[in-house]
Amino acid sequence: MTGLKQEDLVLLWSPKKGDRYLIRLTSGASQSTHLGLLRHDELIGLSYGDPVLSNTGHDFFLLKPSIGEYMRRIRRQTQIVFPKEAGYILLHLSLFPGARVIECGSGSGSLTTLFANMVGDHGRVFSYDRRADFTALAHANCERWGVSERVEFKVRDLAEGFDETDADAVFLDVQAPEDYLRQVRRALAPGRQLGLIVPTTNQLERIIPALQAESFVNIEILELLLRRYKATAARLRPEDVMVGHTGFLVFATAVRGKVPCPENGEE
Amino acid sequence: MTGLKQEDLVLLWSPKKGDRYLIRLTSGASQSTHLGLLRHDELIGLSYGDPVLSNTGHDFFLLKPSIGEYMRRIRRQTQIVFPKEAGYILLHLSLFPGARVIECGSGSGSLTTLFANMVGDHGRVFSYDRRADFTALAHANCERWGVSERVEFKVRDLAEGFDETDADAVFLDVQAPEDYLRQVRRALAPGRQLGLIVPTTNQLERIIPALQAESFVNIEILELLLRRYKATAARLRPEDVMVGHTGFLVFATAVRGKVPCPENGEE
Amino acid sequence: MTGLKQEDLVLLWSPKKGDRYLIRLTSGASQSTHLGLLRHDELIGLSYGDPVLSNTGHDFFLLKPSIGEYMRRIRRQTQIVFPKEAGYILLHLSLFPGARVIECGSGSGSLTTLFANMVGDHGRVFSYDRRADFTALAHANCERWGVSERVEFKVRDLAEGFDETDADAVFLDVQAPEDYLRQVRRALAPGRQLGLIVPTTNQLERIIPALQAESFVNIEILELLLRRYKATAARLRPEDVMVGHTGFLVFATAVRGKVPCPENGEE
Amino acid sequence: MTGLKQEDLVLLWSPKKGDRYLIRLTSGASQSTHLGLLRHDELIGLSYGDPVLSNTGHDFFLLKPSIGEYMRRIRRQTQIVFPKEAGYILLHLSLFPGARVIECGSGSGSLTTLFANMVGDHGRVFSYDRRADFTALAHANCERWGVSERVEFKVRDLAEGFDETDADAVFLDVQAPEDYLRQVRRALAPGRQLGLIVPTTNQLERIIPALQAESFVNIEILELLLRRYKATAARLRPEDVMVGHTGFLVFATAVRGKVPCPENGEE
Repeated sequence: MTGLKQEDLVLLWSPKKGDRYLIRLTSGASQSTHLGLLRHDELIGLSYGDPVLSNTGHDFFLLKPSIGEYMRRIRRQTQIVFPKEAGYILLHLSLFPGARVIECGSGSGSLTTLFANMVGDHGRVFSYDRRADFTALAHANCERWGVSERVEFKVRDLAEGFDETDADAVFLDVQAPEDYLRQVRRALAPGRQLGLIVPTTNQLERIIPALQAESFVNIEILELLLRRYKATAARLRPEDVMVGHTGFLVFATAVRGKVPCPENGEE
Repeated sequence: MTGLKQEDLVLLWSPKKGDRYLIRLTSGASQSTHLGLLRHDELIGLSYGDPVLSNTGHDFFLLKPSIGEYMRRIRRQTQIVFPKEAGYILLHLSLFPGARVIECGSGSGSLTTLFANMVGDHGRVFSYDRRADFTALAHANCERWGVSERVEFKVRDLAEGFDETDADAVFLDVQAPEDYLRQVRRALAPGRQLGLIVPTTNQLERIIPALQAESFVNIEILELLLRRYKATAARLRPEDVMVGHTGFLVFATAVRGKVPCPENGEE
Repeated sequence: MTGLKQEDLVLLWSPKKGDRYLIRLTSGASQSTHLGLLRHDELIGLSYGDPVLSNTGHDFFLLKPSIGEYMRRIRRQTQIVFPKEAGYILLHLSLFPGARVIECGSGSGSLTTLFANMVGDHGRVFSYDRRADFTALAHANCERWGVSERVEFKVRDLAEGFDETDADAVFLDVQAPEDYLRQVRRALAPGRQLGLIVPTTNQLERIIPALQAESFVNIEILELLLRRYKATAARLRPEDVMVGHTGFLVFATAVRGKVPCPENGEE
Repeated sequence: MTGLKQEDLVLLWSPKKGDRYLIRLTSGASQSTHLGLLRHDELIGLSYGDPVLSNTGHDFFLLKPSIGEYMRRIRRQTQIVFPKEAGYILLHLSLFPGARVIECGSGSGSLTTLFANMVGDHGRVFSYDRRADFTALAHANCERWGVSERVEFKVRDLAEGFDETDADAVFLDVQAPEDYLRQVRRALAPGRQLGLIVPTTNQLERIIPALQAESFVNIEILELLLRRYKATAARLRPEDVMVGHTGFLVFATAVRGKVPCPENGEE
């Protein structure tokens, strides 16, 4: 095991408060915390798992950040897709090393980073957004995790369609996904999964008939609630406050030809 | 796009009832459904997304099953880890193509299949179970998804320890995870994540102090609730019944040396 | 304490399985259970809390049913309002002994019984339904609990309006509550609460602007999720299955005159 | 309808922000808000439902506070029982006008006020607390709602037992309810319900066997999750943040004699 080096990501963790700081090692830089200062040069060469002291003598540990932890901590200008939804998305878009996956929009790149992490060196993420500033941010966040080379970012309005065909999966995080289902059908390999996220029930009510009209089947709608517990063995209880809502997830499969009857069976 | 062939997995989906049947194409076999019979030989050569008729004239579509769908439908002899937890586990164990990950027990192989799917051809899953019959089932379920070659199954009592060191991640789904933390520390690379699942609060109350005693830090405890909605646009509402509990997830990071003070900060 | 007598309600509870049977003592009648037969005549004269044996020698206890238990067990022809919502309704309609409260529809009388229980001998429940068969059922269910004399049942289409004015509270459990808000305003004392329940998000989207248009303010929308735990101390965990949805509750307050601006503040 | 007078409770509601202020009309007093000042003397003589202007010309409405609203807004020195649990408690303790109910501790009087509201002039609440300062606060909060005459407050350590027998219901909100079950049995009429609330799973694990040992049966354990929605019809969605935990509710029924076998049936 070789030591930590320039540009490695480190999660500084304090046993005092459980505080966490995500840093990227940069020679000459330092991280200030509520428990004193840590200079990056003193961390370079150490290893993940090592303890270290701040300049005021407080203990910290050098942890390797998980991709889930990273996603929660990226710099953002948009609402991001959170780990509780993102993990479920991976499984229901059936991502795998080597997959070719399309997403729109890039947003702050939270999901882009995850997809790029998971498709590996032989896979490919095609990430569309109509705003160049979001694309730049998403690119920076992918780069920080070391996977930007697996992503093709495209600044484009989705109405113009995707360049790709036979994609293994498509994910939409846009205001009006019902407007782009024709474009999705052209890009997505038949029998494969479209996933999308919307925050409101009004959007759900619009997307369902639009999916049915475009011959998407196997429609699944759900939300995930994450409930945290305090790590106190003698007084175990859920935390007082939880996230009440992030978004509704929708999955559907593209098929060939017309679906004979409306999806009554789902009622 | 070449056609479906022997041994391919297909999700048969009916627009009539939304019924789903997961099959593995086998020449000579046939699938009976509530809406008639489908002979595999008539499916071989078709493509994902194609429509097909049962012998009684009912429509079906040939979908490519997602790994999430597959996990829910594997043959099982044990309680399995479900997609809502499994996706979250992927992100917080930080799995990636090429990763070396340990799990115990193999159980029915639901999580084994997912891990093997995600680590790719250059990664490795080491899957332990003390029962040979579970190992055989887990192996069969991995093979059906086409990833069994990435897994080393070992029939062994966990008390004897793991063969591996410097693993990228460890996941425990065992009765008394607190009994095996020493073995985990030897196997897991420092600064990396241990994940585990337990069904009861009593187990949580035992694992928390055990993790603290073995210098695991950054303890996170949570559960995920999945709520499905009926895909009916004009009368949108959550489904009447939902799963009330599967298990509690715990994550923690192994560090070097003694953690100076008990994890008061987490209180 | 005098003994149990004819027409008293008793909850038979078995320590063997936790089975519960709600009976109304009727001389000559008997209750068959999975653990044998109990003759009402042998129960008359005993007291709440007493043990009793079935004809096959199994133990039962005679419990006094709570109103919550009763509501869950009434004979029903309609979807009923369940205790988890009903209790919240009591508090937010601010029911009290002596209150005059209107409800529509009567349905199976679950909420009618509760309201009548709570307003006492000096209060009054006005219960409307357009179907005479529901009214009859609701009346029977109130009578069984001994509170039917506090209720005036009216078989009427709500479009014709209520007879009452200055009611302390109004509750609507109807298909299209947005159609009857004018009638509610005439019946409800200003500054008091309207409550309503609807199962779908589409209905919520219709009722909100309708309430605003009719000068209802202080709009509150919520749902309640009830999660049960197994009463097993050594393996404490939530139950495997839970109710995923019953309905959305809406509360709003009627005021005088026009509300100056749309309820932007709530956004 | 006569006008509002000295000591009436009013909920001031602003259509601008949905802000709410609970006041008790007091000649000479005034209420400052983010939208200007309101003098009580200008409100006295108006009626519930009336509009009124602040000194800066902003609109307010005079609403009659519900008991649920009041409970959420009482002055408190302790954790209080919230309306979502309180309503369920009413139904499962089976409160009714005329009931005699015991609670311990009084705490800030949130539940005391509700119980006193519901038992009416002919009912009685016996409220115990070992701390005189809590008793004083609970008394003040009951008085503000106008129901303190229905309550007998007693400053006492629960170990000394209750003065009452044959109570219709008992509710415990104490640190170690398992220590006082014998006292509860003496005070509670057989076949009636004990309710209690505890925040941690450890307490649940202790109370279950204690209840079984003291011949309480029909044990029910649950929690309630309340999810609010934004009252915005065109973008309907749950609120971003919700309360993640308040407490676990436990209900059980006292019976006579020994319960023959441990409550295996509940497993």
